[in-house]
Amino acid sequence: MHPQPKERRFRRSALTVEGRFFTTSQAASWLMSTAEAARLSVQQVPFAELGEWAFDEATGDLRHRSGKFFQVHGLRVAIEAESTAHWDQPILDQPEIGILGIIAKEFDGLLYFLMQAKMEPGNPLGVQMVPTVQATRSNYTQVHQGARPLYVDYMLDRRLSRVLVDHLQYEQGSAFFRKRNRNIVVEITEDIPVSPGYQWLTLGQIKALLRTPNLVSMDTRTVISCLPLIERGPAPFGTDSPPDPATGFGSALLASAAERDQGVHTLDDLLQWLTDLKCRWQLAVERIGLDSVRGWARSAHEIAHEDDRFFRVIGVRVESDSREVTRWTQPLVAPATKGLVGFLVKNLGGTLHLLVQARIEPGNAEAVALAPTVQWGLGLDQASSATPTTALVALLRDAPSEWVRYSCTQSEEGGRFFGLESEYRFVELPEDLNPPIPESYRWMTLGQLNEMLRFGLVNIEARNLLSCLSFA
Amino acid sequence: MHPQPKERRFRRSALTVEGRFFTTSQAASWLMSTAEAARLSVQQVPFAELGEWAFDEATGDLRHRSGKFFQVHGLRVAIEAESTAHWDQPILDQPEIGILGIIAKEFDGLLYFLMQAKMEPGNPLGVQMVPTVQATRSNYTQVHQGARPLYVDYMLDRRLSRVLVDHLQYEQGSAFFRKRNRNIVVEITEDIPVSPGYQWLTLGQIKALLRTPNLVSMDTRTVISCLPLIERGPAPFGTDSPPDPATGFGSALLASAAERDQGVHTLDDLLQWLTDLKCRWQLAVERIGLDSVRGWARSAHEIAHEDDRFFRVIGVRVESDSREVTRWTQPLVAPATKGLVGFLVKNLGGTLHLLVQARIEPGNAEAVALAPTVQWGLGLDQASSATPTTALVALLRDAPSEWVRYSCTQSEEGGRFFGLESEYRFVELPEDLNPPIPESYRWMTLGQLNEMLRFGLVNIEARNLLSCLSFA
Repeated sequence: MHPQPKERRFRRSALTVEGRFFTTSQAASWLMSTAEAARLSVQQVPFAELGEWAFDEATGDLRHRSGKFFQVHGLRVAIEAESTAHWDQPILDQPEIGILGIIAKEFDGLLYFLMQAKMEPGNPLGVQMVPTVQATRSNYTQVHQGARPLYVDYMLDRRLSRVLVDHLQYEQGSAFFRKRNRNIVVEITEDIPVSPGYQWLTLGQIKALLRTPNLVSMDTRTVISCLPLIERGPAPFGTDSPPDPATGFGSALLASAAERDQGVHTLDDLLQWLTDLKCRWQLAVERIGLDSVRGWARSAHEIAHEDDRFFRVIGVRVESDSREVTRWTQPLVAPATKGLVGFLVKNLGGTLHLLVQARIEPGNAEAVALAPTVQWGLGLDQASSATPTTALVALLRDAPSEWVRYSCTQSEEGGRFFGLESEYRFVELPEDLNPPIPESYRWMTLGQLNEMLRFGLVNIEARNLLSCLSFA
Repeated sequence: MHPQPKERRFRRSALTVEGRFFTTSQAASWLMSTAEAARLSVQQVPFAELGEWAFDEATGDLRHRSGKFFQVHGLRVAIEAESTAHWDQPILDQPEIGILGIIAKEFDGLLYFLMQAKMEPGNPLGVQMVPTVQATRSNYTQVHQGARPLYVDYMLDRRLSRVLVDHLQYEQGSAFFRKRNRNIVVEITEDIPVSPGYQWLTLGQIKALLRTPNLVSMDTRTVISCLPLIERGPAPFGTDSPPDPATGFGSALLASAAERDQGVHTLDDLLQWLTDLKCRWQLAVERIGLDSVRGWARSAHEIAHEDDRFFRVIGVRVESDSREVTRWTQPLVAPATKGLVGFLVKNLGGTLHLLVQARIEPGNAEAVALAPTVQWGLGLDQASSATPTTALVALLRDAPSEWVRYSCTQSEEGGRFFGLESEYRFVELPEDLNPPIPESYRWMTLGQLNEMLRFGLVNIEARNLLSCLSFA
């Protein structure tokens, strides 16, 4: 066991924005040079040219002939919440739990994380910084042919590493049917060979790279959102002096992260609010064949909503120098528009609070998950078109620049989504601005939201926003 | 808002074993006199005499003609855990979220709970003490004809009451398919009429009645298991002096309930252990027709396992003076044997710890839920027949009396189960006894287990055991 609590070690790494191996700007250059060297070419092709992927004759579901990877089928959705909504949509189904794993190691008393530069066909820049390991269960149990994923044994074998963080978390409930990944960070003490395309970075460096558009992957974001930065118990900052919220947004966030039970609401009150919504709101989903999805049409090139809204399912041919398989075809989900996701933040009683939405999405395991104040993107948002939310959208989108604490374009998993970009934002409202808050929203401290995250109640859009918060 | 935190108010009520309205022994007499006055007669009848209940011709599923209440269908179960198991079984399906609600009110500064004496056909004594309100969604939205349940508006209308506790919790995963109830306690300040068959009791009185077999219902037990007794934050006992664990088992339990993050494991370590099991273990369930269930046979009188194990589904005719409908027929689940559920407890480092099992059951929402050390009953226990557990069963069942801290027969919901009794036990092991602990078990403080319970991770068998703990 390490003499220091892991929260303190993560916090120190988060506050260190230059690493010993290279600078943050060198890290950005390293990623971009990987993209240039790997020459990934992606071309949309008709479904008929998808090779091993084909539509099932009976249902129209889109599947790989092996039955592996993922499939696209239909979902019939009925929601009773603040309003009632019914729709059909295509949804990606990938029931296996995958691993998103990062190896951590201490150098000179500071934690570093082994990050990988990886190409995916749907990435806006081609390359992104991803976790040490991204593997499906089929990958690491080797159902497919192909090499065993590099470093995966450090995730699975407790003789090789010690677990620091291990969460089972859901992905996008708008596009995936209850897809989960294991978000795991393990620590090693031995030296290991660093393969080409991998580098050691501090948590602060990863967060600094999150200020550049599209460099850090969704998978990295969700894993680092699970890292606790504040000790539990009577001395939440251990031997460090507690931050002074008056000295800046980063310090105020750290102070808010230490507030777990008390904010404008207690954690108990928040859980009771969530129980009430879960009992009153109803989500009914029924799996249907992709051919039976009403309001969507399949052409030779795409499956699209009849009003061109939400997203399309397309096929692509990919050629690459950098992967074990150098040429492949696959379906991808292409968004209709750029998304907007963000939290409104406000100082309430001396502590920063985030405005959190309880949200129904068709792929949720429970009807309701906790989401950002605004989440506009792939989702078929008929369910949440109530008018008070449009005022919140306007506040986030049209905020004067002096209220904007973070604003950057980020993109979602390029192995499933084609150029799905969203504007990620944190906007701090002035203390005298009190917009009406709908019943399905609550102000929470960062500590309360982190506590919910720890128990799997926070959706990936909210987690990935939280990962962008910089405390330095 | 009340000037005192609710935890302190619940704790004071839990420590008060005699109420102002009547004594605990009067409460027991009141329950038994209700049973005598109500003259409930229950007779097993062939399925053909079940009236509105019939088998679906295509599937064999047993349903009410209205489609309401619940149905019995088949489930095909495949488990990969410590060992692999496959089986078919009948399962009860009742997808609506019901309400189990208790009204609380302060008299002379002490919280009392409005409890009801209610008859159910499957109760061993006929009567049991149940929550103020037991209602299905159909009841209170009045899909059926019939009176609106008494007091239900206090549960639903926030102008009439204040919520003290509100949890969504699962019922038996061995017999129900993902059945959930809302466990809610609301406080009122006004005087309300106390209808015949209802009485105000302290939490300590309810716990005292749990020392008599079969008087307090499963529904009461699960609700009171959700009541927090210890304040959060740096002063967990508020203005009360902290208990001295050396003065007895009750005080030692209160001290253990205050330990949330630290025990022999941290809460983080326990959550990571659970994540690991959820990722490695797999539960696959497929709904099948009741006629397709292998290994079970239906006669004119029952659906039974071919080895007479686990449970039977039977039909009963009920006649009653005490209910709005005075005569009805329904299916019930009858157990093959009496069950045994219990926790092994041990002082580890000065704090009591309970030995908790991670358990797969077919009706679980997640593959794994937290369960007592021993849970023998309805369940098809092929999945957990590993040998180390048999040693734990022997320790619980055959413990010398000086180790036994609680032992009493309790029965499960008499509206669904016919005379399902289990021996409920807490056994405290001597400090020098160190039985081998399988990987799927962990020692936890009561505070850690309560924290898991708050987030819905603890099964009903464990919750109902915890409700029996007396701190007085």
